[in-house]
Amino acid sequence: MTDTADVHALLREELFEAWGLLSTEERLEGFSILPRSEAEELFLSLPTIDQAELLTALPAADRRSWVRLLPPDDAADVLQNVEDAEREGLLALLDPAALTEVTALLAYKEDVAGGLMNPRYARLRPEMSIDEAIKYLRRLTRQTIENIYYAYVIDTEHTLRGVVSFRELLLAPPESRVRDMMRTELITVPDTMDQERVSELFAQHDLLALPVVDENGRMKGIVTADDIVDVVKEEATEDIQKLGAVEALEAPYMQTTLLELMRKRAPWLVLLFCGQMLTISVMEHYEGKLGAILFLNIFIPIILSSGGNSGSQAATLVVRSLALGEMRLAEWWKVVRREVLIGLLLGLSLGVLGFGRVLFGGSRGAFGDHFVVLGLAVAASIVGVVAWGTIVGSMLPFVLRRLKFDPASASTPFVATLCDVTGLILYFNVATTILAASGATGRT
Amino acid sequence: MTDTADVHALLREELFEAWGLLSTEERLEGFSILPRSEAEELFLSLPTIDQAELLTALPAADRRSWVRLLPPDDAADVLQNVEDAEREGLLALLDPAALTEVTALLAYKEDVAGGLMNPRYARLRPEMSIDEAIKYLRRLTRQTIENIYYAYVIDTEHTLRGVVSFRELLLAPPESRVRDMMRTELITVPDTMDQERVSELFAQHDLLALPVVDENGRMKGIVTADDIVDVVKEEATEDIQKLGAVEALEAPYMQTTLLELMRKRAPWLVLLFCGQMLTISVMEHYEGKLGAILFLNIFIPIILSSGGNSGSQAATLVVRSLALGEMRLAEWWKVVRREVLIGLLLGLSLGVLGFGRVLFGGSRGAFGDHFVVLGLAVAASIVGVVAWGTIVGSMLPFVLRRLKFDPASASTPFVATLCDVTGLILYFNVATTILAASGATGRT
Repeated sequence: MTDTADVHALLREELFEAWGLLSTEERLEGFSILPRSEAEELFLSLPTIDQAELLTALPAADRRSWVRLLPPDDAADVLQNVEDAEREGLLALLDPAALTEVTALLAYKEDVAGGLMNPRYARLRPEMSIDEAIKYLRRLTRQTIENIYYAYVIDTEHTLRGVVSFRELLLAPPESRVRDMMRTELITVPDTMDQERVSELFAQHDLLALPVVDENGRMKGIVTADDIVDVVKEEATEDIQKLGAVEALEAPYMQTTLLELMRKRAPWLVLLFCGQMLTISVMEHYEGKLGAILFLNIFIPIILSSGGNSGSQAATLVVRSLALGEMRLAEWWKVVRREVLIGLLLGLSLGVLGFGRVLFGGSRGAFGDHFVVLGLAVAASIVGVVAWGTIVGSMLPFVLRRLKFDPASASTPFVATLCDVTGLILYFNVATTILAASGATGRT
Repeated sequence: MTDTADVHALLREELFEAWGLLSTEERLEGFSILPRSEAEELFLSLPTIDQAELLTALPAADRRSWVRLLPPDDAADVLQNVEDAEREGLLALLDPAALTEVTALLAYKEDVAGGLMNPRYARLRPEMSIDEAIKYLRRLTRQTIENIYYAYVIDTEHTLRGVVSFRELLLAPPESRVRDMMRTELITVPDTMDQERVSELFAQHDLLALPVVDENGRMKGIVTADDIVDVVKEEATEDIQKLGAVEALEAPYMQTTLLELMRKRAPWLVLLFCGQMLTISVMEHYEGKLGAILFLNIFIPIILSSGGNSGSQAATLVVRSLALGEMRLAEWWKVVRREVLIGLLLGLSLGVLGFGRVLFGGSRGAFGDHFVVLGLAVAASIVGVVAWGTIVGSMLPFVLRRLKFDPASASTPFVATLCDVTGLILYFNVATTILAASGATGRT
């Protein structure tokens, strides 16, 4: 590497690092400073959404060479991320072969195997000799196929018959036939398979590439492990956002418009708010008692939040476990058995703390003569609310999956809202029962 | 495939599917029913933690062949997941070459490149001719190297000099030297690099394998994209659990003991509970006003939860964005600018709903003559609490990262607790100010 090349590579690295901080104009400017080879490197390493932005920001005359730089699967992804008005114009810039491939890919949904695959792969015929196969593969250029680790053996109907690795081709006697040395026990992926399922297959079999076939067994393309890394990230992001009571975003946060952010957040907030309105009704219902035993109010926030927090923990653990396939719907009773016990233990720990706070809280006098009874009432409520929150939090994901919803919708705010309403009812009943039984009905 | 083989493969698939539901004894039994080849397939497709369990459950006499079946990187992972007492015994079962490799791997932490890599890879010398290189590579058995897509060119000091793909070896004239055709612009990974960084390199460059080198540039092994799929899943799981206010679990939920689950959950709950105790103090402080304006109490749960929910949404989005490298620390002011606006808009929407609830809530009479003023007070508080919650939720992850903590610790319960205390103070002040200004100081 010469010094100038070093400087350019450094410039590219810096530009890549700072990318998120730059405006579209600054990005274009930085991009135009780089020599062509470094600019190409940068362009290919950007996420799809940034490639789409850059492509549409470039002058129309410059776009052709950049859109043609992308392999067909990436080109299809980029086209799925530009405005409808731009798509036709960009498609027209592709060469005829790529146009056919990209159009076929655009017909698939982005999140199924067909939308993920690369239609360019190394294909051989079963009747070829090893010598012919190697000669044929040598003629393929880097542009034609993405990852040449396996060659797929296809018959005249385009049906996938077998697979050989490059290593096996090298090892085989040159005069033998592809048919005789190919592996025929294949793991294939239907083109309509959900990308989450595909990623599970990769994880289970530790593979670097899988062939994609249509319903007639015809080979359509290959999915490689590097695509799966992106899928796993995407799916985790969706789950995390749902757990935070946000509808999954389609682009990175900083590239999402304010309007879009509102649309992903407001409906959930409004829905939860409407659920929370029940707490007003509950509070109204117990208003008479509130007047009589005013100091009960003081503990409402802490009791409700304890239930919500323990419920959030349980929901988070179960949602992730379900998503990773670590537990199944049928195991709900195993989970509930553990969580009841854990909930009671956690509740007891917090209950003891709460009892201590009432007894030694400094303002002990404020609670009147009955502070021990009050402490017991608060502690008992905490045990009940925490145990209840834990059960609700661990069961809600199962209920959602059973009803064919995404378990990740059991967001912590959702669980907290469920716990708040029931927590209030529980608290008022437990506390007033204990206080009544002890004869402490009001403040002295 | 014969019919019997079909049946066995089906049995293996079923066993794999049901794995999570079975006890250790049932797993062992199912495992022993399978013919050897299917059992091997099943064993290799199990997660590390299940391999470790199975291995230690097997009679000592049967263990040798199973532990030797594992490639060295997987063997090291399994050994890291067995009891200390078992480790020595299992190490002794390895052949001497594997023992050296596995011991070297065990010296690395599990979550750095060195702990992830496979020390077996195809190595060539720069001075070899292509013909010699191909002959040499042919002699390697499948056991010796995991993924033979690239061959790495190493000098006598074991320094990595270049890389050639199998395809390039096939294409090159047989009499040319490896040195003349290898690529020397290499992306390498230091053996101490954090696995999260390694996964970013894979995502950025869309690679299937990367060489790992020590601080002297000596080649130590390769990391492949299929390992990275597991890393990405693991890291997402950790973040999700932290977001739910649970310390990251080391094993799947169902394999974690109750004691361990308590240890991962109780400290956070207790800490949050102690934080929530501030709400008691705040409530006590405003107790005088509570007595005078009793009905203010009724809205405490809904107002607090609105702040917590909007804060959770903001925190979730920012935490994930930081984890994916979509935004940087320096961008906090960009985020705060957006979130203030979003918080106000969300607050206004909920404020209108809250106002409506007071005005048309059926129990309008219960709020006395001043229900319009009360409605305004509640609405204004909701706007304030939601906007505040949004700001707190979006900024907390930045603050944590700045203080070198994991931003994912900005869990929804943590944010909710922060919002509860400040939300209460805000509510009481806003509400009493508005009510006092309007002359509505108490219930009529």
